[in-house]
Amino acid sequence: MNDGLRVAVVGATGAVGREMLQVLSDRNFPIGRIEAFASPDSVGKMLDFRDQTLRVQSLESLSDPGQFDVALFSCGSERSLTWAPRFARSGCIVIDNSSAWRGHEQVPLVVPEVNGDALEQASLGVVAVPNCSTIGLVQALAPLHAHRPLRRVVVTTFQSVSGSGRKGIEELDRQTRQLFNAQGVESDVFHKRIAFNILPLIGEPEDDGFTAEERKLMTETLKILGDDEIRVVATATRVPVFVGHGLSVVVEPSEPIGVEEAQELIAAHPGVLLTDVEAPMNAPTPEDIAGEDFTLVGRLRRDPSTATGLALWVVSDNLRKGAALNAVQIAEAMIQRGLLAPRREGRQESP
Amino acid sequence: MNDGLRVAVVGATGAVGREMLQVLSDRNFPIGRIEAFASPDSVGKMLDFRDQTLRVQSLESLSDPGQFDVALFSCGSERSLTWAPRFARSGCIVIDNSSAWRGHEQVPLVVPEVNGDALEQASLGVVAVPNCSTIGLVQALAPLHAHRPLRRVVVTTFQSVSGSGRKGIEELDRQTRQLFNAQGVESDVFHKRIAFNILPLIGEPEDDGFTAEERKLMTETLKILGDDEIRVVATATRVPVFVGHGLSVVVEPSEPIGVEEAQELIAAHPGVLLTDVEAPMNAPTPEDIAGEDFTLVGRLRRDPSTATGLALWVVSDNLRKGAALNAVQIAEAMIQRGLLAPRREGRQESP
Repeated sequence: MNDGLRVAVVGATGAVGREMLQVLSDRNFPIGRIEAFASPDSVGKMLDFRDQTLRVQSLESLSDPGQFDVALFSCGSERSLTWAPRFARSGCIVIDNSSAWRGHEQVPLVVPEVNGDALEQASLGVVAVPNCSTIGLVQALAPLHAHRPLRRVVVTTFQSVSGSGRKGIEELDRQTRQLFNAQGVESDVFHKRIAFNILPLIGEPEDDGFTAEERKLMTETLKILGDDEIRVVATATRVPVFVGHGLSVVVEPSEPIGVEEAQELIAAHPGVLLTDVEAPMNAPTPEDIAGEDFTLVGRLRRDPSTATGLALWVVSDNLRKGAALNAVQIAEAMIQRGLLAPRREGRQESP
Repeated sequence: MNDGLRVAVVGATGAVGREMLQVLSDRNFPIGRIEAFASPDSVGKMLDFRDQTLRVQSLESLSDPGQFDVALFSCGSERSLTWAPRFARSGCIVIDNSSAWRGHEQVPLVVPEVNGDALEQASLGVVAVPNCSTIGLVQALAPLHAHRPLRRVVVTTFQSVSGSGRKGIEELDRQTRQLFNAQGVESDVFHKRIAFNILPLIGEPEDDGFTAEERKLMTETLKILGDDEIRVVATATRVPVFVGHGLSVVVEPSEPIGVEEAQELIAAHPGVLLTDVEAPMNAPTPEDIAGEDFTLVGRLRRDPSTATGLALWVVSDNLRKGAALNAVQIAEAMIQRGLLAPRREGRQESP
């Protein structure tokens, strides 16, 4: 046990933070010591982890981040901009779930099954977890792109309320009950009612009409697939689903990829399951994915509107593969590559 | 009153049929006499219409369809294939909401604001109402296409459960209550749970992987816009919304259309409202559209992934503009064009 890693989970009480603890536990991650941090109003809360109870601490009271080997961050961009460098400078690897560091040249943006090699370039000691929808997208696209470079991707997302954290989950729950009890509905987290409704934008549109959520799909995809030539256009919507993001995708490879060929390529890619090849009605839904580690793909078909196109549908658990699981998998991949290990100081502390 | 039209509503007890009665009433349609027909298990039900009560009759007991000037059909393809010709041969204009006649060369497929001229070609006496999603799509595309022919359209639909009729509405309602009461959920109308879920296919995929619902968008759009060169690829999904279909659309015109230019073109098109030009967060949602006659458009933006592309979002009330309203508007347009009038026999009967 004492040869394990000293792990900090930062933002541990949020929807993704709790899932990080769950995933670390489920996967028997080699933990020597684990501590939970969160924003001041969550300090003192108790979280279960295996047979321990973790008392949530304040980052502000942490004098030496160097006492950790790895920190999993899911505390928003602002706090990440402040705290990730402090952890990294003290020698602790930071795996950050926010968008703060994703575009930074010296920060790898990693889905381990797709571009694990990029972990070697983590010269700042910070690795970024991509946007939740982008992870599902690149999991499905990577095997196609490796075979025939994709030139254009058109994607529309169906994002569940857990993408807005626990408050998003609570708002869908509360609004649904209010409607069923003929009560007035209040919207706090979302800008309009989400219960029995579709919100065709996530966050505010910027000058060119795209939201930051859409821009993440349009830029992160290129960095992860390592190809600046791909052109992506995205529409990101919020749907009344608790967990699981869906993606309707149309791609144009540089040369045709047959449907069966595409099925074989995707089926051979780690972490991806094709669900409806034998059973066409079993195209994957968010209900099928909640709690699963795989990215599910279905509806693969030849797009007759272009010479080379394919259409497909992707679902992934936005809290697990879309965030917590991918973060833990990054840590595991860094261990395998010798990039993350209990540091000497840590070993000396626990003789 | 007796100079009005003799109207039959066929399939009057369904979700669309009831909306047809509502729309006929709301719009002061010139009715001399109105009768309601439905399938045998609905015969004898009583329906309110203005200050009358209509007793639902069986089509099988109708000896002379020629006693009507116009029949609004919403009774499914099978019954429409049998009964539309009987009505039409007797001189009654049939406006049919099913997919049975949409592809027929002698049957106009009409959205009055887009291709009302096609009504002149109704040589069989049958006019088809397009698919509910297609109507919203062409309402948004027609003004763009008239300006710069569209070469390609990529569309993903978010279709509400009322598209499956009253049973679809009841299933979403029932499943939501079951989940909130921690009961098991049964799916009858839909192939998987629809409550808090997204179904990425409507009906069964055919050999090429597309569903009939998707094919309607891919073929009807060409017929309505009168251009065989447009290439459309569609993904049709079912979402946990009661009323209102959403569409995420990316178009490629033959030559660039600026965003402001596109806004002006769409805003000038009858029956369409742009909702978010001044207020970007007011992109239209199904909640905004229920019970409205307009097709709402928003999120209009330049698609940077192609040289000429635009992205947009469309919402329409699938029961009204997507079906009942469009059917009544077809009848109104035929009256205006002198293609539909009380026939001599009718006037003689009511001196």
